[in-house]
Amino acid sequence: LDITSKLDPTDYVGFTFFVGCMAMMAASAFFFLSLNQFDKKWRTSVLVSGLITFIAAVHYFYMRDYWAANMESPTFFRYVDWILTVPLMCVEFYLILKVAGAKTSLMWKMIGLSVIMLVTGYFGEAVFTDQAALWGAISGVAYFVIVYEIWLGSAKKLAVAAGGDVLKAHKILCWFVLVGWAIYPLGYMMGTDGWYNSMIPAGNIDVAYNIADAINKIGFGLVIYSLAVKKQDVNA
Amino acid sequence: LDITSKLDPTDYVGFTFFVGCMAMMAASAFFFLSLNQFDKKWRTSVLVSGLITFIAAVHYFYMRDYWAANMESPTFFRYVDWILTVPLMCVEFYLILKVAGAKTSLMWKMIGLSVIMLVTGYFGEAVFTDQAALWGAISGVAYFVIVYEIWLGSAKKLAVAAGGDVLKAHKILCWFVLVGWAIYPLGYMMGTDGWYNSMIPAGNIDVAYNIADAINKIGFGLVIYSLAVKKQDVNA
Ligand SMILES: CC1=C(/C=C/C(C)=C/C=C/C(C)=C/C=O)C(C)(C)CCC1
Ligand SMILES: CC1=C(/C=C/C(C)=C/C=C/C(C)=C/C=O)C(C)(C)CCC1
Repeated sequence: LDITSKLDPTDYVGFTFFVGCMAMMAASAFFFLSLNQFDKKWRTSVLVSGLITFIAAVHYFYMRDYWAANMESPTFFRYVDWILTVPLMCVEFYLILKVAGAKTSLMWKMIGLSVIMLVTGYFGEAVFTDQAALWGAISGVAYFVIVYEIWLGSAKKLAVAAGGDVLKAHKILCWFVLVGWAIYPLGYMMGTDGWYNSMIPAGNIDVAYNIADAINKIGFGLVIYSLAVKKQDVNA
Repeated sequence: LDITSKLDPTDYVGFTFFVGCMAMMAASAFFFLSLNQFDKKWRTSVLVSGLITFIAAVHYFYMRDYWAANMESPTFFRYVDWILTVPLMCVEFYLILKVAGAKTSLMWKMIGLSVIMLVTGYFGEAVFTDQAALWGAISGVAYFVIVYEIWLGSAKKLAVAAGGDVLKAHKILCWFVLVGWAIYPLGYMMGTDGWYNSMIPAGNIDVAYNIADAINKIGFGLVIYSLAVKKQDVNA
């Protein structure tokens, strides 16, 4: 992007891309620079939070330029970002439940589900757009299995076994996945053709995705950051 | 910006953009590289000070190029910057008052007010420029509520309860918000059309904003830095 070219002051979508890009950069600086203060056990979790926002910062940089040049949804970059960051969030769940004995099989199961969710979503949004509703439904099933797994399945049992601050953090993260992540399918329904078009108000898919990303990537990371802060006080 | 193209030596506005950009970069380096010396409790505050100047450095980089190319106020980038840095300053108030038991509700209230202040200001300055005076007035009300909150409201009570160095730092920050921040509405009145044009001398809005940013972002950060230095001596 030629940063000196004039921007339309009412391009609110572009505005959210710029704010999102800088917010992700700042969040990465925050997580990376705070690493030193944590115990080794929790440092990895905070580091992964920083990786998630760092990956997002780079793609927001691309996406805001793509948007400014084409005024078109940067679906390609969006999914490049998600295919890396969503599995990393599954890793986060695993990392905080490790104290309660979580196995890597739980992590791989969640990663597998998230990859199915994203690949089918990409097909619906970018490739087989005529069957957007069908692909979205398959994606949605994978999403619900993830929700089930962490709210009621084995991840939940491990969180209960860990108890205390870990259980509290797990609960907040569960709400992120149920409410924060639900913004994405809503954005998808606003931006694709399907039976749902009469029910969901038309809107800009990118504004929805950008707000959701800010909440989920930065908010999720901050929950893990506060858990690490609490654990550090306990051991100090 | 092609840095080798000839610059007009009397382009004082451009000069302040260049100085501002480098000052923000240097301030970020200063805050980030000093982090190690502080206790955990105060490190976060200094880190946030560094984030504020870091975000500003990036946007000053854009703004000085935009100015050099178009000789026009880079309002878009200005507000992308503020929408991130002003809420972070509200976080700073919360962080230093946490020792006295500040609740996150105080932080969210201040963040909400600052967002209202900036969104309405943006509307007046960039979108609905015909009603600049009206939008500026709404923005000003939000600004006064912030001033009230920290000078006389619950933030003030917490600062008194904390006493000592925290109270002293809080008082200085209160002056920043009352005097330093007041430069912005003055700049706004110099740069927009309204009943106030006959009272306020015409001037360049960007010079006002650039000076105010240097004072508020770097000065504000240095106050927090000195508080952290004092606290570190106490515990050493
Ligand atoms: C259910 C569903 C979807 C879900 C997407 C989700 C849940 C994305 C989450 C992304 C995150 C959390 C990124 C942050 O790092 C799609 C693919 C839009 C397609 C429509 C159905
Ligand atoms: C009251 C008022 C305004 C106030 C702006 C302020 C107070 C901005 C502060 C920015 C800071 C502190 C940035 C530094 O990081 C506007 C929006 C110009 C619009 C006119 C009315």
